[in-house]
Amino acid sequence: MYCRRLVIALQPELFDEDEEGTLIERKPIRYHPISVRDALTELKDLSELMIDLAYSSVLFQDNELAEEVLVLTERVDRLSYLLIMNASLAVRDKRDAEQVAGIIKATDSIHKIASAATDIAIVQLHGIGIHPSVQEAFKKVEERLVRATVANQSILCGKRLQELSLESRIGVGIIGLRRGKRWVLNPKPTFKLNPGDVIIAKGSERGTQQFLRLAKGDLKEVP
Amino acid sequence: MYCRRLVIALQPELFDEDEEGTLIERKPIRYHPISVRDALTELKDLSELMIDLAYSSVLFQDNELAEEVLVLTERVDRLSYLLIMNASLAVRDKRDAEQVAGIIKATDSIHKIASAATDIAIVQLHGIGIHPSVQEAFKKVEERLVRATVANQSILCGKRLQELSLESRIGVGIIGLRRGKRWVLNPKPTFKLNPGDVIIAKGSERGTQQFLRLAKGDLKEVP
Repeated sequence: MYCRRLVIALQPELFDEDEEGTLIERKPIRYHPISVRDALTELKDLSELMIDLAYSSVLFQDNELAEEVLVLTERVDRLSYLLIMNASLAVRDKRDAEQVAGIIKATDSIHKIASAATDIAIVQLHGIGIHPSVQEAFKKVEERLVRATVANQSILCGKRLQELSLESRIGVGIIGLRRGKRWVLNPKPTFKLNPGDVIIAKGSERGTQQFLRLAKGDLKEVP
Repeated sequence: MYCRRLVIALQPELFDEDEEGTLIERKPIRYHPISVRDALTELKDLSELMIDLAYSSVLFQDNELAEEVLVLTERVDRLSYLLIMNASLAVRDKRDAEQVAGIIKATDSIHKIASAATDIAIVQLHGIGIHPSVQEAFKKVEERLVRATVANQSILCGKRLQELSLESRIGVGIIGLRRGKRWVLNPKPTFKLNPGDVIIAKGSERGTQQFLRLAKGDLKEVP
């Protein structure tokens, strides 16, 4: 699985995947209108998530977390091109040009941060790893990130986040989730979970273990 | 001031500054033994601080914050070379070589993140700026970063952080501080402040304003 993703990550301009994960020729990125502000916010949030995921993947030797970084690489890639297209199309005069130059440089810098996160994830996926004595450099306080896929039999299915109160009951926060190819960062309290959703959650060791069992369907109610 | 720093940032291999800020030929980085684990932890913490500072410099159009990023660039630069020297010197066999390769790749990736932060700070220092409607993409919840230099007449002088209880009394945390050319990240509660210390602190708008007045000496006790 991750070998294919590695190829995509290393030569992202050449390939894309269809729903079944087969490599297909990449669809070109075509201009469509987006909000520059929203896109820049999303890009920044994605880059921070990617760094967290990448460090965690090395710390917990977790290939699944590393693979999510590569999936996000794709999104960040497309988003930065779209952002640059939309920002440059807004230029009407010299003053616009100056301000847009700043936006484009910032976009590019955030893209760089995301690509550094990808590099770190690839260290993990190559199976090179990092000596355990050094891994703890990547530790972020007490919290750990986990990745869970919502099973059909999970009680999470069809529930809104506000009904579950995961944060207050088991101290687990949902940072983002992926539904097919679509990423949702910081989902709203009214967001309803579906089977198959891939969730990135953050919390204590105990809380995240409970969350994994809830997603799998082994645990039938939120403790 | 920042023009000179820009030159250093853009051609860091060529210059260094003496205590008075005059450009001098850069001292070569010579091997000396350091703990690879500690250095990697510091490098990661520095890169995160640089990103926070860089985003904040753009958000608050604050050249002082941006300049601190450039000062940190220097530190990160030297630290990564030293890290690579120390890690590679530890290689005795093939297995060591594999693990050290991971450390060196990770070091390089974190260096990349730091250099992206520098790029963002330079956007601010060039006076290009970013359109206000887009700046808020760089906002991080409610907290803001400030940079304060401890004045001779400040009540902070000679006090240990634990005596001041800034966190519990005005909700301000000290992320790091610079004494001359030396950086201290996440200073311990027993750390004693000196006049001239350059402090990076984080907190609410109100708390950070109080902190700035404390550092300047305008406010004579912690509220």
